Amino acid sequence: MPPALAPDALRLSLRRHGRVPLYHQIATGLRERIESGDLPAGTRLPAERELARAVGVNRSTVVAAYDELEAEGLVDCRPGRGTVVSAGRAPGPGPDWARRLGSAADRWELPLLAEIQDALAAPHLIPLAHGEPGPDLWPRDALDRLLRGASLARVPMGYPEPHGYPELREALARRLRGRGITAGPESIVLVNGSQQGFHLITQTLLSPGDAVAVERPSYLGTLRLFDGSGIRTVPVPVGPEGIDLDHLAASLQPGVRALFTIPTCHSPTGTTLPEPGRQRLVSLAARRRLLVVEDDPFTDLVLDGPAPRSLKAFDTAGSVLTLGTLSKTAAPALRVGWIVAPAPVADVLARTRLQFDLGGGILSEWVAARWLASGGYDEHLAWLRQPLARRRAAMLEALGRWLGGMATWVGPAGGYHVWCRLEVRASSLAVFRAAVRQGVAVVPGAVYRFEPGAPHVRLSFCRAAPGEIAEGVRRLRRAVDRLASRSAVAARR
Amino acid sequence: MPPALAPDALRLSLRRHGRVPLYHQIATGLRERIESGDLPAGTRLPAERELARAVGVNRSTVVAAYDELEAEGLVDCRPGRGTVVSAGRAPGPGPDWARRLGSAADRWELPLLAEIQDALAAPHLIPLAHGEPGPDLWPRDALDRLLRGASLARVPMGYPEPHGYPELREALARRLRGRGITAGPESIVLVNGSQQGFHLITQTLLSPGDAVAVERPSYLGTLRLFDGSGIRTVPVPVGPEGIDLDHLAASLQPGVRALFTIPTCHSPTGTTLPEPGRQRLVSLAARRRLLVVEDDPFTDLVLDGPAPRSLKAFDTAGSVLTLGTLSKTAAPALRVGWIVAPAPVADVLARTRLQFDLGGGILSEWVAARWLASGGYDEHLAWLRQPLARRRAAMLEALGRWLGGMATWVGPAGGYHVWCRLEVRASSLAVFRAAVRQGVAVVPGAVYRFEPGAPHVRLSFCRAAPGEIAEGVRRLRRAVDRLASRSAVAARR
Repeated sequence: MPPALAPDALRLSLRRHGRVPLYHQIATGLRERIESGDLPAGTRLPAERELARAVGVNRSTVVAAYDELEAEGLVDCRPGRGTVVSAGRAPGPGPDWARRLGSAADRWELPLLAEIQDALAAPHLIPLAHGEPGPDLWPRDALDRLLRGASLARVPMGYPEPHGYPELREALARRLRGRGITAGPESIVLVNGSQQGFHLITQTLLSPGDAVAVERPSYLGTLRLFDGSGIRTVPVPVGPEGIDLDHLAASLQPGVRALFTIPTCHSPTGTTLPEPGRQRLVSLAARRRLLVVEDDPFTDLVLDGPAPRSLKAFDTAGSVLTLGTLSKTAAPALRVGWIVAPAPVADVLARTRLQFDLGGGILSEWVAARWLASGGYDEHLAWLRQPLARRRAAMLEALGRWLGGMATWVGPAGGYHVWCRLEVRASSLAVFRAAVRQGVAVVPGAVYRFEPGAPHVRLSFCRAAPGEIAEGVRRLRRAVDRLASRSAVAARR
Repeated sequence: MPPALAPDALRLSLRRHGRVPLYHQIATGLRERIESGDLPAGTRLPAERELARAVGVNRSTVVAAYDELEAEGLVDCRPGRGTVVSAGRAPGPGPDWARRLGSAADRWELPLLAEIQDALAAPHLIPLAHGEPGPDLWPRDALDRLLRGASLARVPMGYPEPHGYPELREALARRLRGRGITAGPESIVLVNGSQQGFHLITQTLLSPGDAVAVERPSYLGTLRLFDGSGIRTVPVPVGPEGIDLDHLAASLQPGVRALFTIPTCHSPTGTTLPEPGRQRLVSLAARRRLLVVEDDPFTDLVLDGPAPRSLKAFDTAGSVLTLGTLSKTAAPALRVGWIVAPAPVADVLARTRLQFDLGGGILSEWVAARWLASGGYDEHLAWLRQPLARRRAAMLEALGRWLGGMATWVGPAGGYHVWCRLEVRASSLAVFRAAVRQGVAVVPGAVYRFEPGAPHVRLSFCRAAPGEIAEGVRRLRRAVDRLASRSAVAARR
């Protein structure tokens, strides 16, 4: 059975002081959408109580509206199934949407995420769950200046080149050279954010039934792609200095074809693999014919000393694909990411990408190219690191103050996240819900399918201001206290 | 065996008047790329003759460079296999790229396309093969004005909403209402061009083993997606007034789950399905529970009278998904497209899209929203129809003059294309090659897997100026004459 529509998907706008009764306005709005096929047969309308709350009417008003539609044969109200658009008026039953959408939802969805998303959107919660900074750190002014001074006169506006806008690839190649990576523009494929890169790699270089080694916990976006693509994951634990290489070496059975790893300011754990470990990882991969996919969104946001060199800088066997992005350093909405790969691999990825969407948008790629080439991007980075350093300091100070002795964490070299193990008998989901009740949003370890002996949460310092961060951690402490006293009560019973 | 690299992928830049011998410069350039893993073990270097021609040296210079690299153990030169990067120096053999890339290439590639692409890029050929206008018709000035007067101050720069930028969806909803489509912003999913829409639909609403009905000939991008996704196609012929509905009705065996169709200014045939046929098609689909995917890139470029209403305007069962794009009316590089779907279907498509690339670039969606809302897009359309009408007239006049009696075609109501059946004993590929020899590029029917009794070609009037179009058709006539006399000679023998 498909889920009921959310009330706001109906977009009912009611005139409260007009002559038309509210129930009739609701019925009219729904009738139009049902008769146009926009709400096809089988669509479950919102529950009466929910819709009433959402549009601010009594439940009886919604009941009257649904009754009117039922009398017309447009919907069926069945106990236990709710109110469903009927097939009565249509010239035929139409596509079997319930079945088609049900299987798509099974394939791609994790129900837990909806609950987290709600917490992210709630304005009254202190935001320690976000994976992105807020408007105060977006480079809107810098981009405005670029756009105002620019002209598209020399910019190609036809179908994109398979690898993406050459000037951006050239600017990236120069930049990567400074980071120990030798790669010409022909070894770079621009993508619509790293997520598209993972999708491309998964679809092109892996096959259903393959296994990939991946940190546990790890970035959710890749885990869900593997699920959707029939790819098995072999989890590798993460220590204070990144992925556990002994464990990795031991877990490379023959079916394991790739390693997906975030060696710098790992999400969610915040850990960074030092350079000797990188050398060892790359040598191991070369000997074992392993493809290494390095997800590297945070290198430019390392706050302590120079960032370690990319895995690709140690790669002489062509084992490593490195993915970078402007999403964490500038703004996710730009959707500018890139894959650095051996040239023949880049070629296949670029051509596959044409099947997916015929290439990326020139406006983003062109603005990014100008920003990088002009030095403006580096200026922005230098500026951005300052608030991030202040926020990280606030987070670590608050953790010491409020959770010292009740939690363990590793101070991250940069990035956005601190990973926190809490000493309380509760699931991470229970911690998440208790924290929301106290007015702070965190990401529970359950999202990453990580539930060892104690609950873990990811705390982000990218979005909230220092004072808010301190208050958020204080609220988290309160949530932990509540859970602890509840479990003490349960133990006494 | 993977294909050899193209010479320009090596990006060798030689100093012709320096002290370093050319063969040594070539060896140095390659050595650096091999040692960095950018040309991994197993990569086939370009053939000596090809590389020599591409960089403008004697073949013996390339031989000397390859010899130097072979002496160092960096490459192996084997008869019949060419020169291949060896695994000698690497710490391990690295990923088995040859096998991995070979299967990816099998999955996604059609070799014929490379030959067509070369013809599209050749500056000396009159361009009657393009699927996009050239720079003279791009709206660069209009977009420049929009960008200069704009500010990102109120534009969201975080991770995109699943359905895409709300203001663009609202502008599209208003526009679609004028075309007989009742759909709110929540029934619209923005995509990175229609191709991404097809990919999403294929991956979400269809499964491997399903069959889809599709016009023969039809748009190549969807045919290749079906191939890559294990979806069978059931071809339906196209008559002078679009898809043959009797044939469609007869071909709907139970396994056929969807119809992909281009009812307006169809590519490649240029035909348009009249409104009574649309009504019949949609009723048939509703009765047979068929999902209809309407690819509608040319509606705004109908030149004769008002465009027929979208299939979706006739849809009361929620059977139809309509895809639109700015690629044909503005510029492909914007990558702005949209899917209109029943609201619950739009919801699943939007959430699936997050798996693919986390959403579209805000700069394109924001510029498009402003352009549509300001009326600037409609002004551009009114202007664009004029050169297209002149070019269509030039094409039809030239066809009558040079190919009357030797070919048949249907005058298109608009769009970009005329589909031409040639009365000559030759394959469409032979016609294509003969045309290229005469200095004109056309698209052979073979690309669309359409090879009935006589050769067909797609002639585009979107790119070349009227005079060029006339000359291009004259050259096509010359190509046909050559083929005819050759086949007459063969017949006499």
